[in-house]
Amino acid sequence: MSLFEPFPLPGTTLPNRLVLPAMVTRLSGEDGIVNDDIRARYVRFAKGEVGLIVVEAMAVHSAKSGPLLRISSDAFLPGLADLASRCHDAGPGKVVPQIIHFLKIARSGWRQTVDLLSPEEIDGIVDAYGDGAQRARAAGFDGVELHMAHAYTLSSFLSRLNPRRDAYGGTLDNRLRLPLRVLERVRARVGNDFAVGVRFLGEECIRNGYTVVDAGPIAVALARRGADYISLSAGGKFEDARLIEGEPLYPYTGYSGDRCMPGSNYPDGANLYMPEAVRADLRRNGLATPVIAVGKIGTREMAEEVVRGEKGDLVGMARALLADPDLPKKWRMDRQDSVVRCVYGNVCKTLDENFKRVDCTLWPKKLGQAPTSEDVTPPEWPRDGSGLTAEYKEGHVLLRWRAASDNEAMYGYEVLRQEGKNPFRHWSSVRAASQRFEDARVVPGASYGYLLRPYDLAGNRGLASEVVEVDIPDDHRPPDRDPAVAADPAALEGCTATGH
Amino acid sequence: MSLFEPFPLPGTTLPNRLVLPAMVTRLSGEDGIVNDDIRARYVRFAKGEVGLIVVEAMAVHSAKSGPLLRISSDAFLPGLADLASRCHDAGPGKVVPQIIHFLKIARSGWRQTVDLLSPEEIDGIVDAYGDGAQRARAAGFDGVELHMAHAYTLSSFLSRLNPRRDAYGGTLDNRLRLPLRVLERVRARVGNDFAVGVRFLGEECIRNGYTVVDAGPIAVALARRGADYISLSAGGKFEDARLIEGEPLYPYTGYSGDRCMPGSNYPDGANLYMPEAVRADLRRNGLATPVIAVGKIGTREMAEEVVRGEKGDLVGMARALLADPDLPKKWRMDRQDSVVRCVYGNVCKTLDENFKRVDCTLWPKKLGQAPTSEDVTPPEWPRDGSGLTAEYKEGHVLLRWRAASDNEAMYGYEVLRQEGKNPFRHWSSVRAASQRFEDARVVPGASYGYLLRPYDLAGNRGLASEVVEVDIPDDHRPPDRDPAVAADPAALEGCTATGH
Repeated sequence: MSLFEPFPLPGTTLPNRLVLPAMVTRLSGEDGIVNDDIRARYVRFAKGEVGLIVVEAMAVHSAKSGPLLRISSDAFLPGLADLASRCHDAGPGKVVPQIIHFLKIARSGWRQTVDLLSPEEIDGIVDAYGDGAQRARAAGFDGVELHMAHAYTLSSFLSRLNPRRDAYGGTLDNRLRLPLRVLERVRARVGNDFAVGVRFLGEECIRNGYTVVDAGPIAVALARRGADYISLSAGGKFEDARLIEGEPLYPYTGYSGDRCMPGSNYPDGANLYMPEAVRADLRRNGLATPVIAVGKIGTREMAEEVVRGEKGDLVGMARALLADPDLPKKWRMDRQDSVVRCVYGNVCKTLDENFKRVDCTLWPKKLGQAPTSEDVTPPEWPRDGSGLTAEYKEGHVLLRWRAASDNEAMYGYEVLRQEGKNPFRHWSSVRAASQRFEDARVVPGASYGYLLRPYDLAGNRGLASEVVEVDIPDDHRPPDRDPAVAADPAALEGCTATGH
Repeated sequence: MSLFEPFPLPGTTLPNRLVLPAMVTRLSGEDGIVNDDIRARYVRFAKGEVGLIVVEAMAVHSAKSGPLLRISSDAFLPGLADLASRCHDAGPGKVVPQIIHFLKIARSGWRQTVDLLSPEEIDGIVDAYGDGAQRARAAGFDGVELHMAHAYTLSSFLSRLNPRRDAYGGTLDNRLRLPLRVLERVRARVGNDFAVGVRFLGEECIRNGYTVVDAGPIAVALARRGADYISLSAGGKFEDARLIEGEPLYPYTGYSGDRCMPGSNYPDGANLYMPEAVRADLRRNGLATPVIAVGKIGTREMAEEVVRGEKGDLVGMARALLADPDLPKKWRMDRQDSVVRCVYGNVCKTLDENFKRVDCTLWPKKLGQAPTSEDVTPPEWPRDGSGLTAEYKEGHVLLRWRAASDNEAMYGYEVLRQEGKNPFRHWSSVRAASQRFEDARVVPGASYGYLLRPYDLAGNRGLASEVVEVDIPDDHRPPDRDPAVAADPAALEGCTATGH
């Protein structure tokens, strides 16, 4: 049951139980062809030794959209084959693409809903998934993942709000009809020795939406029809998306978007009750289908608890691996302390919501991906200390310090903050380029303690700085513009937790 | 650890661990004085032997509102004292009033928010709670519960969206400042030998809202300041309420309202992770403060699991006790099978949302409360059977049957439905007056099995009828008006689950 035991799937074996779930990158062009940025991103993940890489959603049809990978014709095969091959060369992990069908959406706010689809259009979706999956196999991937989650076509069929009044809506059996037809067709096209996973929602997290009450039976139906793994997400729906004038509705901007990528106001493992309940349903029905658990799993302790506590068979981490793709390798080598840690400040989520390239804001600027280093020597403060000072100024706390140095190269500083007498917590991380941090999330009359830990490109952490304390005056007013919610989050020098 | 062991609180001892949480009834007049309907409702609960009755929220101030009990002046004392005394006479349970402060709200959509309150107004809230609590003691109640949940004043201070920029907003310490001042004042007014409970949200269930990450520390702070019990609710916020033209915004109409009173699409015990996490935080901090767990707890198995699994110390049930106030007594006598069971179809919730008197729709019409009977003889079908027939007709399935008879009086019929080959589940309950049931929640091409169980006034169940099956034609269209979402839910003859 170790995280680092090989894990078998049809036709392949994962080197460990860690999974990179599909994650929007916005690195693709509108042409949908694999480009240098996409290659670099996934090769970097592969180097870090994650057991399974699920490449971001690629469309099985040619409908217009923003930047999005495509697997909708053979013209995309060379690029995809090259991507699979490069990932295989870079590390021990396996690679599957997530394949997606989505409906039309207009800037006017209009969106196509599943009740508008004709029987012929429904048949076309089945065909497109079958073709896409066959191309995934032809490209040399180790399997394929069918996207039935969030706000997209198959998820909208599974939804409890599916408005169809024919055999594709109403009862759960009917809501499952198209997803099962797709799965059946895909299986017929790729054979039994090729892993076919399905990702769908453990809970819709919208008014009148479904919960694990339906997700369990959905998983059972999919597993019986031959799904090789079940990957559970949550939320990410159109129904509660915030309407922004002139922008297309984006399904991660409402409450259900919070639940999809739980930020620092959520407990670690906030969504684990979903895979736990769904997996129990599968096992009760005699099905051994593995379940991928996700939802703010950032520590080795929690990942091990998932497997030990039967909350999942495989452990999915998106943001934690974006922050440090080498996390699997570092865990394997028992170097947990050198993992560059995600603070779940969700700058990446905000970048996506603003239709910008999704990088981790902790990465060195302009590098466009996480740095690589095998170094093991931690950085050091100057001989006379960090010189950390804290000053209340113009509505925020300004921290300044002297640069730490490293035998190779500095990467950044972890800022730990203490509120009153509470324990210090990881509050923000800032890039090495700057020796200052503005904390605008302070309130009148409060007292804060701060300390820093420097870390280098390999994530090695130096000693903690001294602690500095600052009192916020009773007449404090925040600055007009809170940098943590700036319009252009890419301008930030780090990622800050949003909790109090 | 049995549910039926006495449970001590300061100055009183509950006869068992079962709690009726505060529940809107809309039985009060606008004058706020205890009336016959209110008396009858709570006396009925007391007869059923629930361990603690929390009487619906009563205002500590005299602000205008719809029908609402008041504890805002000594003029209300005689009515309240009479209510407490009658409940004590009717059963072994203890009685506490929930006391509330709320802000102004207009039909225009405008609502007063906590940032609009002056320091003097804040002091006034503290005074009003102190006075209200003292009146609760003077009236002969066994304690008092401070309402800090849902969309009301103290909850809005605790909220992660509290917009104040002074010492009453921002950090969690600041958000807690007024609630702690209120608790402190109440304690000073009522003394240490009088139970003071606090109800607040385990999770706000709104975008950027707080979760158990904050609820744990909130509970710890309240317990340290002397709260005698912590009662956790969820959701019920203004932020996601649905705007209905011409009606005041009502905080249970959005997603967070779903989470407050989870319907049949939610698993049993859907919110139990909240009391579990909060209770663990209390215990880690050396605090033995009991926690009341709620959230669709309807069976004895689940109630016992709450206590055994350390998910709570006391078990709160609102809808299950509304459906059958005798549930505690029946459980105590090991007569679980005669409990009239809530199907969580939320007709009661819909009544409340439509500003109507909140009855359980299963109750005999015009009685206005649950019937009372000590009879133990179950009803019987006619000698030649139930005669149950099912027919597809005009967009719905019509069930008809012959009346069962009872030595005393019939109460209703449980309708169990099977979808395809799935197990039968309790789908609806209908009142005895009618020997027909229209099921409009059917879909094209589906097959359903139905069976009935008759039950009498005491909840004794007769034998199951034969099973009837019906196929829904492929060209089925639902009738225009779905009775389960009718404008006037009081017109319904029963309560139907909403899940599929």
